[in-house]
Amino acid sequence: MKIIIVGGTGTIGRAVVNELAPRHDIVTVGNSSGDFQVDITSEESIKQLYKNVGEFDALISATGKVHFAEFAEFKYDDYQIGLQNKVMGQINLVLIGRDYINDNGSFTLTSGILNREPIVMGSSAAMVNGAIDGFVKGAAIEMPKGQRINVISPTVIAEAMDVYAPFFRGFEPVPAATAALAYSKSVEGKQTGQVFIV
Amino acid sequence: MKIIIVGGTGTIGRAVVNELAPRHDIVTVGNSSGDFQVDITSEESIKQLYKNVGEFDALISATGKVHFAEFAEFKYDDYQIGLQNKVMGQINLVLIGRDYINDNGSFTLTSGILNREPIVMGSSAAMVNGAIDGFVKGAAIEMPKGQRINVISPTVIAEAMDVYAPFFRGFEPVPAATAALAYSKSVEGKQTGQVFIV
Repeated sequence: MKIIIVGGTGTIGRAVVNELAPRHDIVTVGNSSGDFQVDITSEESIKQLYKNVGEFDALISATGKVHFAEFAEFKYDDYQIGLQNKVMGQINLVLIGRDYINDNGSFTLTSGILNREPIVMGSSAAMVNGAIDGFVKGAAIEMPKGQRINVISPTVIAEAMDVYAPFFRGFEPVPAATAALAYSKSVEGKQTGQVFIV
Repeated sequence: MKIIIVGGTGTIGRAVVNELAPRHDIVTVGNSSGDFQVDITSEESIKQLYKNVGEFDALISATGKVHFAEFAEFKYDDYQIGLQNKVMGQINLVLIGRDYINDNGSFTLTSGILNREPIVMGSSAAMVNGAIDGFVKGAAIEMPKGQRINVISPTVIAEAMDVYAPFFRGFEPVPAATAALAYSKSVEGKQTGQVFIV
């Protein structure tokens, strides 16, 4: 399969590349690095990405910005960051990509644990993750041409604990390589409409 | 308690009023009817509402617009309707209301079944409901001054089946009066961070 990995240069993305590269043709996409670049908040940028990459069988998205702050400090505009970037950015990869992906292709998005297990400063992340999980369940039953869509909802990643540990006390981190298996299951299996919890 | 019910003139809202009015001081709020009016997409309008109502103990929101359409027809802007109205409108009632509500007051929002049980044309509703459920779980652990927050996630309401039945085949509707009990539980109980499924 030809697999596009948006966020393929990030912590999870690199592990997904390592998992899938031995068996598939991988195209890595980042903001500023990777084989191609994309701004997921720009419809034009996403269209250009798909035109540049050409036909493909699967898109994995492991990207998206969310604002973290104490709830007392959180304002309306702070919530818009996650909604417009991690939620609508990933959804736009699907809305535009459904016209470019091969029949029976798959989309795999990324949410996260915080709508299941909240942390302080995570009210936007919890909202964003819930939105992505919900979208995937809703869209899956209407995907055209045999296309599938799933979402991976990982807990905190071991490789990121040097930065995130103070915010995730008591959380059992998983190695990125373990999270990468869920992406493999989504792309190389046949399930759809699933929230794969890692 | 003095309880503000935004959407208090809608199908669920009226049932919530019937449930709570015998025991509490109820203020109904609608777009164009009710004791007061509010545009939940306008920060200014929400502030004015709270100033006009004065101090209160609980806010219930049973309101919010979402776009319904087949996924093939769904575009970026269509998703923004639900995000800016049902998600951010309800969240803004909380963000602004937390400065006006009495200590130990409660906020009760409304999501819906579609992120748990998707239907055709419901990809935005599924996203929106997941976002609200996630926000409530995330925000609950950081609410100031003993404030609580919950969300009611109802299935289709019996009184709405004359319009909605074709979209909800096989769903068991609940009477609005049954859904209203969940709002009572949220307001008159002491739980927080809960998604009450009806």
